[in-house]
Amino acid sequence: MDLENIKYFKGKKPTRRKFLRGALLAGGSVAASSVAATHALASSGADPAIVDKQPWDTRFGAGVDAAPYGLPSPYEVAVQRRNVPWLTADTVSSINFTPLHQLDGIITPNGLCFERHHSGVAEIDPAKYRLMINGLVERELVFTLEDLMRFPRENHVYFLECVANSGMEWNGAQMNGVQFTHGMIHNVMYTGVPLRLILEEAGIKTNASWLLVEGADAAGMTRSLPMEKALDDCLVAFKMNGEALRAEQGYPVRLVVPGWEGNMWIKWLRRIEVGDRPWHHREETSRYTDLMADGRARRFTWELDAKSVITNPSPQAPLTHGRGQTVLNGVAWSGRGTIARVDVSLDGGINWHTARLSGPSLDKSMHRFYFEFDWDGSDLLLQSRAIDSTGYVQPTKDALRAIRGKNSVYHNNGIQTWLVNPDGGVENVEVS
Amino acid sequence: MDLENIKYFKGKKPTRRKFLRGALLAGGSVAASSVAATHALASSGADPAIVDKQPWDTRFGAGVDAAPYGLPSPYEVAVQRRNVPWLTADTVSSINFTPLHQLDGIITPNGLCFERHHSGVAEIDPAKYRLMINGLVERELVFTLEDLMRFPRENHVYFLECVANSGMEWNGAQMNGVQFTHGMIHNVMYTGVPLRLILEEAGIKTNASWLLVEGADAAGMTRSLPMEKALDDCLVAFKMNGEALRAEQGYPVRLVVPGWEGNMWIKWLRRIEVGDRPWHHREETSRYTDLMADGRARRFTWELDAKSVITNPSPQAPLTHGRGQTVLNGVAWSGRGTIARVDVSLDGGINWHTARLSGPSLDKSMHRFYFEFDWDGSDLLLQSRAIDSTGYVQPTKDALRAIRGKNSVYHNNGIQTWLVNPDGGVENVEVS
Repeated sequence: MDLENIKYFKGKKPTRRKFLRGALLAGGSVAASSVAATHALASSGADPAIVDKQPWDTRFGAGVDAAPYGLPSPYEVAVQRRNVPWLTADTVSSINFTPLHQLDGIITPNGLCFERHHSGVAEIDPAKYRLMINGLVERELVFTLEDLMRFPRENHVYFLECVANSGMEWNGAQMNGVQFTHGMIHNVMYTGVPLRLILEEAGIKTNASWLLVEGADAAGMTRSLPMEKALDDCLVAFKMNGEALRAEQGYPVRLVVPGWEGNMWIKWLRRIEVGDRPWHHREETSRYTDLMADGRARRFTWELDAKSVITNPSPQAPLTHGRGQTVLNGVAWSGRGTIARVDVSLDGGINWHTARLSGPSLDKSMHRFYFEFDWDGSDLLLQSRAIDSTGYVQPTKDALRAIRGKNSVYHNNGIQTWLVNPDGGVENVEVS
Repeated sequence: MDLENIKYFKGKKPTRRKFLRGALLAGGSVAASSVAATHALASSGADPAIVDKQPWDTRFGAGVDAAPYGLPSPYEVAVQRRNVPWLTADTVSSINFTPLHQLDGIITPNGLCFERHHSGVAEIDPAKYRLMINGLVERELVFTLEDLMRFPRENHVYFLECVANSGMEWNGAQMNGVQFTHGMIHNVMYTGVPLRLILEEAGIKTNASWLLVEGADAAGMTRSLPMEKALDDCLVAFKMNGEALRAEQGYPVRLVVPGWEGNMWIKWLRRIEVGDRPWHHREETSRYTDLMADGRARRFTWELDAKSVITNPSPQAPLTHGRGQTVLNGVAWSGRGTIARVDVSLDGGINWHTARLSGPSLDKSMHRFYFEFDWDGSDLLLQSRAIDSTGYVQPTKDALRAIRGKNSVYHNNGIQTWLVNPDGGVENVEVS
């Protein structure tokens, strides 16, 4: 690899650094280590007296009546969803981003799940909530929230990824932080009623083959959903991570469409129309289609391919501890099944190492991976690639561009590269 | 069954109802139904116009910059941890309770995880946090938080149950709500370093067989932990459900002791002393021991046996929809493995039905169960019993009392009974 192959991020925006420091990149000595056999990880110079004689050791803290609904420690105030003001004309039709570099495991806390609204957060009175099902059904029905709670429920952990996630990276390294390159994703345990049971209750007619699913926000967000998916694994969900859906995630009821584009997971779900062909509405023609190099557009590219990213180190989470034992941390997911394996590279894709998967292996859910290695202080070019249960291997961005051109915004599941400098700072780069 | 066998809750406290309504109990017609074949579940009388023409349909909501850390919908304000003021002398050494009747799935949101403090919530500056390991080790060490983050991590979902959970029920039905009878439990995905790796880093001497684990709060909470458990599955954890531990759960670092009494999961962990015998400190002699009928006390009864409870319907969550299709909802857990099966009874333990388990089967984690049935409007006596992967069957409270007497407060994993009245109201009762 040589420096010619590194495309620096373009520095169009004031928050981005303009160029790399001059050091040569070297693969370096990066053999994976097992648990350190020495006590190099302890701060042997630290004063043991700091262990006690602290204010929290000598006085009472807050009692059990202080916080009926608890919040993070004041020391964690910087752990936030963040939006990018220049990205959209208004915050009511915009996006904010999950701080992936500050999270671990596979559960995204509800307060940090990224948001994408088309008309802001609808605040719905659950007593006035209704779900209508009409069209090619035996019985047109209207359900209250309590009606829905009388159907059998299921619980599943699924990732929800906006299909525009990493979209700004199509034309090269752009955003300097994993929160912004990959933060349009969250991973949550949903409780809901299989959509199949709602459809059975209404009785679908023999010529029914598509649904129109519609939200109750001012955007009236709609998408066409093929009947086969609706009868497979979709949920009409009312809980996330144990509690009621958050308003910004569709309270009181959203559609869950596992493994498919987030825009199809209609929030504030108010109507399901059953039909015999797709509707070709605005949000599946002018948007959420894939414009190819020859000017034609792919429609209905619903499934999300396998993808992964290293969350630590990353531009917002530099290496601050210097040389020695280092934990590389990341997440992988696939809209087509489970994650079978994740490989990581420390030298921009020349050599690959098998990462260690951690936590349960769940269908269409994030999977956490780690790779422990001894850092020798030289530059690193970090990459990860996910392999899913179908055998699909996450491609390079160039491989995607070779097929789809550079007009695309959506479905960028290409391999991400982070450059780690000797000072521990991390930058978003591309190698080819 | 006859009324003689129903022990009414005793009404010692002003918040409890004093006696049952007079209706006779009948087993009733309680055959489990599959999904309703009719459209009985839809509100056919509802005006379809309510589906649209609502304020949220006609105006923009809040934008993506409104809530960097999101909170529940204002309509969910009643979903709270709750404490019981008469239970303890002061709220800094007290308990509040997880609202199990308002949750679903198996993840407890961090804001609703019950609290048990001995000196209130220690608020620790993570920059000043230290963990010391001393005693029978090759190297006495002090770790910063960053030092700990350089060890390999694992992710596991575990329940944490206070061993006093349901303790107030030893002498009969007392508390009128599942939040108060069973709410000293939560179920969370932890990210942390295996304690084994910390011990290996320090090098344990050959005669080492016990640890003293110590908290940094003003109570200086300590427990003796056998080395075998420490080397097995304990974690030094710094994340819960993806984000940093909450202050009330031990921020920045707590011990995770899967399947064992919650008081051993030392919060604000500051010191691990390695020794060759248990310490017999205050919190394992004066408290957290089991006083038997003959005046002797069992010590070191760490493991939590299999247990389950029906969360809906329950006294705080009555049946409001009248007769017909009904979802019975509950949770089960075992400190010895996974949940193999849950049985439910609608007639106080005369007839048992196999419940439907939902969601992943995880070691030492909650498992959600459901049982759908057609309610005919007659009285019900609801019970559940868990069977774990060792074959252990959750016992009746009377079976526990026959062995352990009535002095106990701790380790009450007996079967809970809820009486459902024809009006849908639910009461805490006992049958024998």
